[in-house]
Amino acid sequence: MDKTLNLQTIRHSTAHVLAGAVQKLYPDVKFGIGPAIENGFYYDFDFGDQKISEEDLPKIEAEMEKIIAENLPFIRKEISVGEAREVFADQPYKLELLEDKAQIGNRSLHPFTYKVGGFTDLCKGPHVKNTSEIKAFKLTRLAGAYWKGSEKNPMLTRIYGLAFETQKELDEYLKLQEEAKKHDHRKLSKELDFFSQNEMVGPGLILWHPKLSVVREEIELWWRKEHRKRGYQYVYTPHIGKEVLWQTSGHTDFYKDLMYPPLKDERDDVYYVKPMNCPFHVLIYKSRPRSYKELPLRWGELGTVYRYELEGVRHGILRPRGFTQDDAHIICTKEQIVPELEGVLDFALEMNTVFGFDNLHYELSLRDPETPEKYIGDTEGWEMAQKVLKDILDSRGVEYNAGIGEAKFYGPAIDLKVEDAVGRLWQGTTIQFDFNLPEKFEMTYVGEDGKDHTPYMIHRTLLGSMERFVGCLIEHYAGAFPVWLAPVQVVVIPISERHNEYARSVVEKLRTTNYELRTNLDDRDETMQAKIRDAQLQKVPYMLIVGDKEEKAGTVSERGRSGKDYGQVEIDEFITNIKKEIEEKTIN
Amino acid sequence: MDKTLNLQTIRHSTAHVLAGAVQKLYPDVKFGIGPAIENGFYYDFDFGDQKISEEDLPKIEAEMEKIIAENLPFIRKEISVGEAREVFADQPYKLELLEDKAQIGNRSLHPFTYKVGGFTDLCKGPHVKNTSEIKAFKLTRLAGAYWKGSEKNPMLTRIYGLAFETQKELDEYLKLQEEAKKHDHRKLSKELDFFSQNEMVGPGLILWHPKLSVVREEIELWWRKEHRKRGYQYVYTPHIGKEVLWQTSGHTDFYKDLMYPPLKDERDDVYYVKPMNCPFHVLIYKSRPRSYKELPLRWGELGTVYRYELEGVRHGILRPRGFTQDDAHIICTKEQIVPELEGVLDFALEMNTVFGFDNLHYELSLRDPETPEKYIGDTEGWEMAQKVLKDILDSRGVEYNAGIGEAKFYGPAIDLKVEDAVGRLWQGTTIQFDFNLPEKFEMTYVGEDGKDHTPYMIHRTLLGSMERFVGCLIEHYAGAFPVWLAPVQVVVIPISERHNEYARSVVEKLRTTNYELRTNLDDRDETMQAKIRDAQLQKVPYMLIVGDKEEKAGTVSERGRSGKDYGQVEIDEFITNIKKEIEEKTIN
Repeated sequence: MDKTLNLQTIRHSTAHVLAGAVQKLYPDVKFGIGPAIENGFYYDFDFGDQKISEEDLPKIEAEMEKIIAENLPFIRKEISVGEAREVFADQPYKLELLEDKAQIGNRSLHPFTYKVGGFTDLCKGPHVKNTSEIKAFKLTRLAGAYWKGSEKNPMLTRIYGLAFETQKELDEYLKLQEEAKKHDHRKLSKELDFFSQNEMVGPGLILWHPKLSVVREEIELWWRKEHRKRGYQYVYTPHIGKEVLWQTSGHTDFYKDLMYPPLKDERDDVYYVKPMNCPFHVLIYKSRPRSYKELPLRWGELGTVYRYELEGVRHGILRPRGFTQDDAHIICTKEQIVPELEGVLDFALEMNTVFGFDNLHYELSLRDPETPEKYIGDTEGWEMAQKVLKDILDSRGVEYNAGIGEAKFYGPAIDLKVEDAVGRLWQGTTIQFDFNLPEKFEMTYVGEDGKDHTPYMIHRTLLGSMERFVGCLIEHYAGAFPVWLAPVQVVVIPISERHNEYARSVVEKLRTTNYELRTNLDDRDETMQAKIRDAQLQKVPYMLIVGDKEEKAGTVSERGRSGKDYGQVEIDEFITNIKKEIEEKTIN
Repeated sequence: MDKTLNLQTIRHSTAHVLAGAVQKLYPDVKFGIGPAIENGFYYDFDFGDQKISEEDLPKIEAEMEKIIAENLPFIRKEISVGEAREVFADQPYKLELLEDKAQIGNRSLHPFTYKVGGFTDLCKGPHVKNTSEIKAFKLTRLAGAYWKGSEKNPMLTRIYGLAFETQKELDEYLKLQEEAKKHDHRKLSKELDFFSQNEMVGPGLILWHPKLSVVREEIELWWRKEHRKRGYQYVYTPHIGKEVLWQTSGHTDFYKDLMYPPLKDERDDVYYVKPMNCPFHVLIYKSRPRSYKELPLRWGELGTVYRYELEGVRHGILRPRGFTQDDAHIICTKEQIVPELEGVLDFALEMNTVFGFDNLHYELSLRDPETPEKYIGDTEGWEMAQKVLKDILDSRGVEYNAGIGEAKFYGPAIDLKVEDAVGRLWQGTTIQFDFNLPEKFEMTYVGEDGKDHTPYMIHRTLLGSMERFVGCLIEHYAGAFPVWLAPVQVVVIPISERHNEYARSVVEKLRTTNYELRTNLDDRDETMQAKIRDAQLQKVPYMLIVGDKEEKAGTVSERGRSGKDYGQVEIDEFITNIKKEIEEKTIN
């Protein structure tokens, strides 16, 4: 059930209308590509010597409105490669795409064109029937984008836009975007001293400051425990490996653009920092003979990998170049593959729920049959593996998108996207069915029949990466983490200097409970009001205020970060309550 | 109090006797260097076209005995550079050393020679007065060693030997060595499936298998807790950083030989994988202005670093190329430096004691005033920092060795060596006083006076690295870890197939206690005796045997890995006892 097909078609068609409008205003423009994307579309243009700025967007929007108002049909036409070469004679990028496709060969190529008004595109569609079906769009911003995503190619101008089925939906989305600004993890992280990047280290390489490290440590601790419970074992592997390792795994053939430069000088072999952990886990498997009795093996690692994401793709801690995957590989027999996949999917759902993500979006990531050169393994294998994953989703009766071309080079995947507090989607869990690496690495086990067999392998991360997941939590909670994750859980605020001693005794008591509550004392020379305000800005879940009254009674006055006043409580009672919240991972 | 000076002198003199013996047997030999080392000495020789093997060692030993029996004096002589050039005219390596020293300049060079029998060496001593003082030595093995430790230079032949004050001490040492073979971590790790290396990954890069990873996880978990208790905060930092970072820190100038090749291609800046974590912690400090009120800051990280150790230096998991330091940096004011250093030293002693290492050897690692070019910072600073560390050791009244030239390039250190079960020493804790990096990185804090000040920095690891420390534990315990660390803590052994169900219920009970005991079921089709033997070989602390008797009574029969039979016990009693052992980290 592909629920977004219609919306994608509208967005893709709006991209064509954008291109038509740009062509009218800038007749010499050269066209790149213009696909539908999440919430909208973009189109890449080469404006030659002419430069445009975001101030030109209203003018282009007005031109688009005109085209839409004309109720123009989208006209599809199948033509020969020769005809196509003529149609796009003065469009070098389109010609390049045409020649790329013509070269793939081994099947006869029939290019399609789509025409709307005066604009004709090389495109296989589908599109809406008529521009009147486009009811709500908005151009949002400009960005630079390399042709075909490669730094070696010219930089084009990308115009981004939004498109929805109705104006109401577009307005709602824009409102959420406004709200989302308050949740922006980069802004919040500055205010809360969460992380930084530094030019001397390099773009996309994250320095985790102490407070955000607490959040990560808590998640990792819990993650390890949950994995042990489910029969996973932990392994540790290096961050670099020789070139031959990545040649064997296929990474230097299929993944090189996303790999950092090689480590190379006159001394020794060439090494690469790892973009994935899998080959190392494979080598542990191969370190001795294996028997079917040991399978399934479930090996997890919080493994830090490095991927050379292009500048336009990087985004704070959400899309860095160095990140720690909560990775695991399951090595199993053919009979075990479905129950293991089911088990991983259940585990992923449970884990996401704990953080308050119960609205999960499923995606089935498939290979693109148009570009078989991007994948290892034969068609038969791919179809088998894709069917296994599809059947699992179908048997659960869940809705999902089919992401053609979203598979990794070694196998298809079930991916989950979490929806955050302001309705945005974040890629989290990925469960990949790999029928290729075990063969490439000649992994075997001795079966019940005494013969050698090749196992299957599942690659999976449940949270995705610690960086993206924690970044996503910052945005989701707008920095106000649940108590079990909060970097500082309690601030004790003496009303005046003469309460400092009692305040210290309260801090001491909280710090030395079995729970080792993360407690700070705010004994600065400030007013109580200022201290409360600062604790709230720092999103500290609980403030315990102590003055004469509390000291005499041996109590504290409790306030929540939302401003709620709980009044005087016994210290032990407070501890019991916060303990319960931590144990139950309450979201508040 | 330098207690080993005498022994070092004897060992160094024995190296000269070795060289004299070799000269007699191989008159054309060229001499490299011949220092004292732990337990003995070595001398490097260039035998030219002649090759020697370990079979030649007895012959050389006999020649040495002859020299010693002649009661020859060691004769010291101060000569001019010109004279030295004549004396060593046919000794190219000695000449090279002479010219190296002559070039350092800015003080007049007076070379010394030492002559014993027919052999004269370029050497500043000290030496024993007479060969009769050499009472117990033994040549042990040959190895290849690059001249000056650089792969660019010729490979010399190194002859290693042992030397002690008395034959009794030498015999004791040899006996311990025999014992140590049983403790060899490489041998044990193969039997116990602990770790591996793989040619496709690269030498010195460790793949931690699941069982040894359990040991590391337990240590790390506990390490984090102990650090939090003492006011440390955790940080996470990347494994790579741009060249400019390492230029600023001084690593590319002073540490480059130990760094992996740069990451370099046409796409971007040059990066290096990190040989140390410090520059990243410095950048977190610099991410915002700091006040004296925040100091001291104590930032810890289990940070994985990569150092390009030469082939001869690598040694299993004890000296790998990639390793995880239990690192921390303390950033503090001048007034805080001594109490912080004292605190770290106390912490180190406590931590080592938990693992059964209470016999610690202190070393004060100083810079070598002969090679000032290897260090940053001025003499005055070095003397101040060295004095601070020396005073701390002296005030504690502990014995220590002064390790001239053992300091890192940025500051002196107190190092601790642990003595294992068979009397060998392993470098563990290092506590470095850095008065240089804060200046190089322009770190500042606003003092009570409202002005900018430069803080001091302590670099420290308490265990050294997870790799070396765990390797050292394997050797220390001969693989039989204390219960809290044991990869498998309990094996439940059903006497026959019909006890499998009861055995499973016992396993289930142990696995789901609060302690989540690491419990395996051995339901293989083997005899009870075979299962017990296998569990003992696998060094599992406890075996619980269950048969008719135990099933009926709802008990287990408990055995220890040493063979001790505890008889029938209640399951809850067993849990209470093992829980206590785990909590108290009992060494058994």
